Formats: sequence, structure tokens, C-alpha cells
Amino acid sequence: MKEYKICIIGFGAVGKGVAKAISLKKDNIKEKYNANLKIVAAADSSSSAISSDGLDEELLLKTKEETGKLESYPNFGGNLNGMEILNEVDYDILIDVTPTNIETGEPALSLTLKAFEDGKDVITSNKGHLAIKFKELIATARENNVQFKYESTVGGAMPIINFVQETLNSCEVESIIGILNGTTNYILSRMTTEGSSYINTLNESQELGIAETDPTQDVEGIDAACKTVILANSILGVDAVYSDVDVTGISQITSEAISLAKKDGYLIKLIGEVSKEELKVSPRLVKQGSQYDLNGTLNMATVKTDLAGDVTVVGKGAGSLETASAILTDLINVIKMK
Amino acid sequence: MKEYKICIIGFGAVGKGVAKAISLKKDNIKEKYNANLKIVAAADSSSSAISSDGLDEELLLKTKEETGKLESYPNFGGNLNGMEILNEVDYDILIDVTPTNIETGEPALSLTLKAFEDGKDVITSNKGHLAIKFKELIATARENNVQFKYESTVGGAMPIINFVQETLNSCEVESIIGILNGTTNYILSRMTTEGSSYINTLNESQELGIAETDPTQDVEGIDAACKTVILANSILGVDAVYSDVDVTGISQITSEAISLAKKDGYLIKLIGEVSKEELKVSPRLVKQGSQYDLNGTLNMATVKTDLAGDVTVVGKGAGSLETASAILTDLINVIKMK
Repeated sequence: MKEYKICIIGFGAVGKGVAKAISLKKDNIKEKYNANLKIVAAADSSSSAISSDGLDEELLLKTKEETGKLESYPNFGGNLNGMEILNEVDYDILIDVTPTNIETGEPALSLTLKAFEDGKDVITSNKGHLAIKFKELIATARENNVQFKYESTVGGAMPIINFVQETLNSCEVESIIGILNGTTNYILSRMTTEGSSYINTLNESQELGIAETDPTQDVEGIDAACKTVILANSILGVDAVYSDVDVTGISQITSEAISLAKKDGYLIKLIGEVSKEELKVSPRLVKQGSQYDLNGTLNMATVKTDLAGDVTVVGKGAGSLETASAILTDLINVIKMK
Repeated sequence: MKEYKICIIGFGAVGKGVAKAISLKKDNIKEKYNANLKIVAAADSSSSAISSDGLDEELLLKTKEETGKLESYPNFGGNLNGMEILNEVDYDILIDVTPTNIETGEPALSLTLKAFEDGKDVITSNKGHLAIKFKELIATARENNVQFKYESTVGGAMPIINFVQETLNSCEVESIIGILNGTTNYILSRMTTEGSSYINTLNESQELGIAETDPTQDVEGIDAACKTVILANSILGVDAVYSDVDVTGISQITSEAISLAKKDGYLIKLIGEVSKEELKVSPRLVKQGSQYDLNGTLNMATVKTDLAGDVTVVGKGAGSLETASAILTDLINVIKMK
């Protein structure tokens, strides 16, 4: 039985999902992969819990839920930040679920490079550092002979990166096109079915927790644009960065535009498109009843290939446990390669 | 550079697709996986071509196209059958693309067991032996320490088996439901859009080469039923055989039933459903605009999971090169594990 010591840096919705997923699946993973998963450290933005004997996942979740922080985790709570943890704790795999910052890529960038230099494998759900320094990150992982996985950065529980790399590896991928952001898909779908204005629908989405208090990254297309960069680099082998993407969001879409489209049998969707020539995120007319006609926060992507033709995947683009499932798949794949 | 000597037994649409796919991708595979693919034997139902130096893929295809047989392949044509080839030829991997026989599983069953006993890896597109003796085949492959791959048996170019095993390996799969047969989907879609009768639409499909001269396996649900058995065994770990499936085909569907459904916003589709409790293939009402609302020969499958929720894949269910792409993916995965 091999033991894997895990640090979870970031303990928001996705970080909590990872703890829950490990709690639910660790016995199964022990049996199936002969691997013992142990969370030796977890940190949110202002507090932490550390134990070389392993933290109890359910107690971590309970502590966070009851106090909003991790420092009151019994006996092992504290105030180390992510970088301090990586300096002080003995671990094998970093699960980086910090929030995306598209300007600097931090804190994911520094944490990831530090982990690579120390010979640790990294799994991330953070899009910021990937969208601005993908090539450098991959090169540094390779130089240090460590694994770097990022399935959950695109599409949450809709598998797309592993999907193409593992199940379409006989094909050349020509392009990828799809709905890559769940929040904007929810807003546009509601505007279509309810005939409501953009601003009212955004407010409703915020009340439901589907849109964030500051919705900019979603509604201005930034989140989807980051995903096109990650897909371009990882699947098409293009050396692209965030500034290469032609981005238009949905904040200028009126209910009139949507109802005009509807009359003619069309919908307006925020579509991301990735090819060797172009990275683009923009609202587009798509036919009602077509593969793009998906409601709610669903994501979809159609991969155009040379041998297999078009292959489409549809899945939940967000959700704590759903996104964590992609991280756990990455974790299993890291373990399988050890 | 490692060399892989390949036998292709069966040289119909899928066999020809495999030769074409190898011709198109062998340089790429050489570069990417340091593997040299060499077809040392190919056989159709009545003739063969064999060369330890490797057969030329394009010449194989030309010979078959011009003469309908392989025996006139220059210098290396002959009349050995599949079993004789496995007895006489030095090879590493058997690609079995013989036609499905749901009664006996032959010739795939004998060929596969012979290859296993000789320590050879096998990739198959044949559903017959899998639908009647899945468990025994897997056990025999394991005993002989060889690899056995069958991605193309379900969904052609719609990846489903590798998809679940490689990209959803963190999840438990609860059920799989979908459109698993392209021919019947084409017939039902045309009956819906054209208002035509079953028999006229079947005739049209036969003229287009979408339905076979004897369409029984497709229209009576036998093909889809075989696929539910393969999915149940490979993904749900259920020990199922063909006779466990509750099967109803589409030959009794009238254009009146379809138009009545249409008026109420429904379509009739042949749906396969796989759970631990039940294997079922039957025509069902599905909502227009739902994920089942797919035209043409497309296949789709929704995988219900515990962590990731529902994940759906859509792809071409048939086609020579499309199906061959799944076989080539299996071949690459065999090579990667060596």
C-alpha cells in the first residue's frame, strides 16, 4: 500500500468538494489502486490545518462550515498560508484550488512553481496561471520530472482534456467549439424562456448563487476565454496566451435581441471556439434544437477530428462535487503513473 | 523503435478502414510512440495476403477494391483463412474485425481464444462473442497476461468504454442510457421528418447502404442489445449475457404512431438502457429538443455517475474510418501498455 500525502490549498466550493470526494472515495481508491490518500494540510485564504498523521475530511468540512475558517480544526488549526505550508509540510501532491486571477496568475503561479521545484506533482482547477503562462508551466513540470494535471479547469465535470488525450488519441483534432461557461448559459437560457432583461436575470442568478457577486469573469467572457487558451495549448499544441483571444461577453445582449432570434428559430449562446488559426469567445446565433440548445449551467464541446468526425461531450460545467470529480480523476491518473 | 506485427482478420468496411487508418497514421504513431506498425497478414472471408516484411496498406485496399478479394495481392496473395493465419504467421496483435454472429460468436470466439493462448493481444470490433461469453473472454485474456480491447464494439466513433474507464474513473457509474444503433436512428428520424412508412424508409436506407440487405440485427434491436451487454460487463461490472436483455425492435413502429407522438412534442427513438437491475432495448417516447433528439446515424449515451452527475457523449455510430479510429485508439493504448 503506497501512501500519498496531499496538500489542498484553497478551501472554497471546489476545495470543500475535493475533501468531500476524498472522504467518499478513499476506501474505494485504496482497494482499487492500492493507494492510501491522506490530506496532510489544507488552507483557505486566511487559515489552515496541518497534521502529518492526516486530517479528517469530514471534520475539515464541519470546521469550515461552522466557523468559516480552518484554524479552529481541533489541535491542528493554524494560520500558515499556502506558500508557508509548501515550505514546511512534507507532502507528495499539491491540489491547488485557489481562485483564478487572470492578471497575475497568483497565488497559483508561485505555489505551482514552488511545488515543481520541490519535485511534487500538482493538480489544479485554477485557470489564471495556465491562461498566461501555459507553456512555461508545462516546461517546468517536465524539467522537474513531475506530473501536472488540470482537467477541472475546463468544463468542470464535463471531461474534455483527458477525453481527447485518452480516448481520441488516434485522431488529429482540428478544432473545438462549445459552450464553456455555465453561468452565462444559465443567464441566456433564462432570458430566452422568461423574456427577462439581462440585469434582472443576472440579479436572479446572483441570488441563486449561480453568478458571483462580481460576475465580471463570467459575463464578460473572461472565464470562457481562459478555457479556450487551455484547450488550444493542451489539445491543439498551439502556443497561446490570454491576450490572443478575441473576447466579447454577454452584458450587452438585450431581451429584444433574444426574442428576435427566437422568432426565427435561433438562440443566442456564448460560444468559445478554438482552432490553430483563432481563439474566440462571443455571443452567437445557434439553431433551436441543435447541439448548442442546452439549458441551465450545462457545458458542451464538439471536438472536430480527422478520423472520428465530430464528437461531442455534455456535462455539468460547475458544482462543488462535480468539479472535484475531475480533480479526483486527475489524482487517480497521477497515482496510476507513479 | 519497437515493431508491432499486426494481423487483420476480416476485410469488410471496418477492416478496410483499419488499413486506411494505419496508412494515414503510421508515421505519426512512429514519431509519437516510437512504434513501427506493420500489417503482416490480412484476410477476408475467402482469401488472404501475408508478408513478414509487411503489406502495403494502400495496395491491400486497391487489391480488395479492384478484385473484391485479397488473393491477387502481388506476390503475397493466397487463401489461408483466419485460423490458418494465426497458426502460421508470426504476429503480435490480432485485429479481429470479423462479422458479428450472435448465435455462436464465431469466428471471433475461436480466433480470440487461440490468440490469447498464444500470448497475443487482441483488439476486436465484433460484438457476438462479447455478448455471449464476455466474462470467459476477459478471464482468459487475464490468465494469459494479454490485452483485450473492444472500444469500437459500442458506438463506433462515439467513445464510451475508454471514456468512462479513463476520464470518469473517480466516479461510480449508476446507469447508461442512449441511442446505441445508428441505422435505426436514421430510419426513425426519416420516418419523423418525411412521414413515410417503416418499410419504405427501410428500403431507402438499404439503397443508401445505411441498412444492410438483411437488416434484422439492426431493426430488431439485436445490435443495440449486444452493446448493452458489453456496457453492463465492462462498465457496471455486471455478469450479463445476451439472453438477459429485454429486446424490442422498431419493425412494428407505424408512421401513425410517430405522427401522433410528434403532435404532442415527442419523438420515438430506439433506446438502450443499462443498469445493475436491467438491460433493455425498446422504442420509447422522448421529448423533442431533448438530448435524444438526434438525427441521422448519430449515437449518444448518457452516463449517470455519483460525483460528476450526468455526462453525455455524442458521435458517429458507424462509418468505416470512424469505427477504425476507435480500433486505432485501442491499438495505441495496447502499445502504450507494452
